[in-house]
Amino acid sequence: MFNKNRRTNDMSGYNTITPEIIDQIKGVVAPNRVYTGEDINEDFSHDEMSIYGKRMPDAVVSPISTEEVAAVMKIAYDNNIVVTPRGAGTGLVGACVPIYGGIVMDMTKMNKIEGYDLDNFVVQVQPGVLLNDLAEDCVKQGLMYPPDPGEKFATLGGNVSTNAGGMRAVKYGATRDYVRAMTVVLPTGEVVKFGSTVSKTSSGYSLLNLMIGAEGTLGIITDLTLKVIPAPKEVISLVIPFETLDDCIATVPKFKFNHLDPQALEFMEKAIVQASERYIGRSVYPQVIDGVEAGAYLLVTFDGNSKEELDDVIEQASDIVFDNGAIDVLVADTPTKIKDAWAARSSFLEAIKAETNWKDGLELLDECDVVVPLNQIAPYVKYVYEVGEELGLRIESFGHAGDGNLHIYTIGDDKISVEEFEKKADEFFSKIYPKATEVGGLVSGEHAIGAGKLKYLAESVGQKQMDLMVGIKRVFDPKMILNPGKVCYKL
Amino acid sequence: MFNKNRRTNDMSGYNTITPEIIDQIKGVVAPNRVYTGEDINEDFSHDEMSIYGKRMPDAVVSPISTEEVAAVMKIAYDNNIVVTPRGAGTGLVGACVPIYGGIVMDMTKMNKIEGYDLDNFVVQVQPGVLLNDLAEDCVKQGLMYPPDPGEKFATLGGNVSTNAGGMRAVKYGATRDYVRAMTVVLPTGEVVKFGSTVSKTSSGYSLLNLMIGAEGTLGIITDLTLKVIPAPKEVISLVIPFETLDDCIATVPKFKFNHLDPQALEFMEKAIVQASERYIGRSVYPQVIDGVEAGAYLLVTFDGNSKEELDDVIEQASDIVFDNGAIDVLVADTPTKIKDAWAARSSFLEAIKAETNWKDGLELLDECDVVVPLNQIAPYVKYVYEVGEELGLRIESFGHAGDGNLHIYTIGDDKISVEEFEKKADEFFSKIYPKATEVGGLVSGEHAIGAGKLKYLAESVGQKQMDLMVGIKRVFDPKMILNPGKVCYKL
Repeated sequence: MFNKNRRTNDMSGYNTITPEIIDQIKGVVAPNRVYTGEDINEDFSHDEMSIYGKRMPDAVVSPISTEEVAAVMKIAYDNNIVVTPRGAGTGLVGACVPIYGGIVMDMTKMNKIEGYDLDNFVVQVQPGVLLNDLAEDCVKQGLMYPPDPGEKFATLGGNVSTNAGGMRAVKYGATRDYVRAMTVVLPTGEVVKFGSTVSKTSSGYSLLNLMIGAEGTLGIITDLTLKVIPAPKEVISLVIPFETLDDCIATVPKFKFNHLDPQALEFMEKAIVQASERYIGRSVYPQVIDGVEAGAYLLVTFDGNSKEELDDVIEQASDIVFDNGAIDVLVADTPTKIKDAWAARSSFLEAIKAETNWKDGLELLDECDVVVPLNQIAPYVKYVYEVGEELGLRIESFGHAGDGNLHIYTIGDDKISVEEFEKKADEFFSKIYPKATEVGGLVSGEHAIGAGKLKYLAESVGQKQMDLMVGIKRVFDPKMILNPGKVCYKL
Repeated sequence: MFNKNRRTNDMSGYNTITPEIIDQIKGVVAPNRVYTGEDINEDFSHDEMSIYGKRMPDAVVSPISTEEVAAVMKIAYDNNIVVTPRGAGTGLVGACVPIYGGIVMDMTKMNKIEGYDLDNFVVQVQPGVLLNDLAEDCVKQGLMYPPDPGEKFATLGGNVSTNAGGMRAVKYGATRDYVRAMTVVLPTGEVVKFGSTVSKTSSGYSLLNLMIGAEGTLGIITDLTLKVIPAPKEVISLVIPFETLDDCIATVPKFKFNHLDPQALEFMEKAIVQASERYIGRSVYPQVIDGVEAGAYLLVTFDGNSKEELDDVIEQASDIVFDNGAIDVLVADTPTKIKDAWAARSSFLEAIKAETNWKDGLELLDECDVVVPLNQIAPYVKYVYEVGEELGLRIESFGHAGDGNLHIYTIGDDKISVEEFEKKADEFFSKIYPKATEVGGLVSGEHAIGAGKLKYLAESVGQKQMDLMVGIKRVFDPKMILNPGKVCYKL
């Protein structure tokens, strides 16, 4: 399975790292932050979906400044050595895997929150700061950093490089909407600054926006200026069971129509809620209400600046959902209740992984995160289950109902061989990706492309757009040494 | 003055349009929508700042479909003919001026609002729809298209191509935040679609965001899918006089700190308010309050969903501004009063133009729209006036206090010659642009670069970034035939 969608052992014309080059690197980065051979932790060979690639780098360098990143990149450029930037390694598409070997640039030691500018509502951070650390620090300042991807222990550099979305995108937008400026080390070792503290700009092509979601293929981010907002004073969540997924999804646009603006709006089906509750060992979601079985749930969070404002919102939201077929509304209005309501949702991936079979050291699990128009969610999910059933694959799904971003998992049972699972998963994705495009969607809402989704992106956007992307890649990286084989690469 | 920052009569290797090529074009676009020679309206030779370039095109073509645009572009590509796309011609940097001659692609006949998708809160439009027409149509549907540039009779294609900002950017963001998808005819005549109806995506480099603000140099937009929102139910405006600009600007971040989220937040100085009130012939802004002279004003608009909500907001906002040195608060809470409050602000440009001198058929007026961090507005504006005084130039300024976007005008008096004004204006801008960069700002907040601001952009971002932009331009447009000489061009 490691060879899916990419090449590992080709002769790509890159040079192998030599002891002399290592010595050069140790001349610009403290030698105790340069790792080779057996000193390299095995973690650097993969991300959280090793199915999309696994390979040990020849060296790992852990810089602590822009200058160090630039100096190492310059050595790599001069010597035609591949460099792969890496955050916390929590990615799901193989984007930080050094599939051509070379140097992994480990950005996790650049983890300082450098300071807030409260006149302009921005914070300056190094790219290795973890999302969770910034989120907690913001709370202390009475602020909120709105992007809220499920994985809280990713780095902000990683979040920016995948345009991470998350739960609160429905109200606040994705990471793209919070990036004001960045310092970037180009593949040539040159240092540039894109964007500025200001919110509004029309000053040439937006190289800033090109870097966002580029998965570390156009440059290495070494500094970020991010927008923050004042933290909302009050938050409540509602758990809303429906008989069917159709009813559940049809309710979603009604909130907005009625001037309600949920901070998060997640849908989940019965099976995955039950799996998750088994995993966490606690049951919060009602399964049968007045004799009616719940088939799907909405989990909705609202924020506001007073209890009264949110009491109003609860009342209006309840009217809306009951008018649209909800069979109950459970209000979580204390931090503990909110935590309980979200516990099942937050544990979906772990719950799925806990029930996944392993064969020959490989997890029989594959996933996608397509995004489709809101009115296509229900029919699309139905189609996905039909394809799964046809192929005899177990499917689990959940997603961000407010923005059409779906997480779809396919899981092999204990009878299937690795090869058979691989073949069936491939058949499965080869049907559901084109269907997403067909209904007006895109390949990935927030996980990005990496090495794992290249062929599906190409199928979705077509050769001309892939050519434009490769052309842009070459403008930034004439030697194609920075994270090759990802997003749009072709040799 | 026409030769400022660009070349007009060079030998650029482009071909001249021939009668045979015109015949080819008339084979793909109805002949009565293809104009040559004296049939071309003089308007097509300039935008609203003819100081940045003026030249008649050799042909004007007014297509009505993507297919027609693609067919004309293909003919131009095959024959090495320059094409310049044009919306309503309301630009301020010369971006739509055919400085190399060739074909002007007049997009104004593609002006259909194609339909709303209320499940996904998007509207599909042709690029020639005027902002004003979409805004009015949205109101009829109970919706709002938030971007609100001062010029309401620009096309949406033009708005997207300059990432137009406007009054409401402080709360709702700029045009970039409302573009979901677009159909684009590339310089080769190929047709691509960037983005989709969905709000969240991480599917390869964001070619969509690259097109936004590219001023028609990378492709011609022929269809747009734009985000809309439910219209707020209630709106009020406040006029708030302060003794000094410093006090006025220092108040701006306090709204956000206190969880107030103004829809618009404009500052204006005494002189320009008075000029504007002279122009419209009516006085609304108080000049002296309890013996204290107003030196600057904030004009703030709030929106909400009930009168009670906004009454609360008025009370909180009044407390905030009085705590920060306001000398009065005037509430405009009816459509007529709001219109009156905004009348002076909306007429600034016309008021300035009315008081501008003409010499040798040229308006002695130049302007810039730098954007600076909020806490730099007051010292920056002070600096600008000092430079103006030093040079003996009349300066007027106003701007979007909520986002740091400043409009600065320099106006020649009746004693100055064209050459002298040109020289002094150049000296003026050569000082104030680098100062904006120095304090962390950028060259343009919303007007863009066009042909007029090229050298200031290059100075601000540096040669490397200009090279990256030119590289990207070449990837899209290998023959450099689409709107050359704009944004980042170098021969």
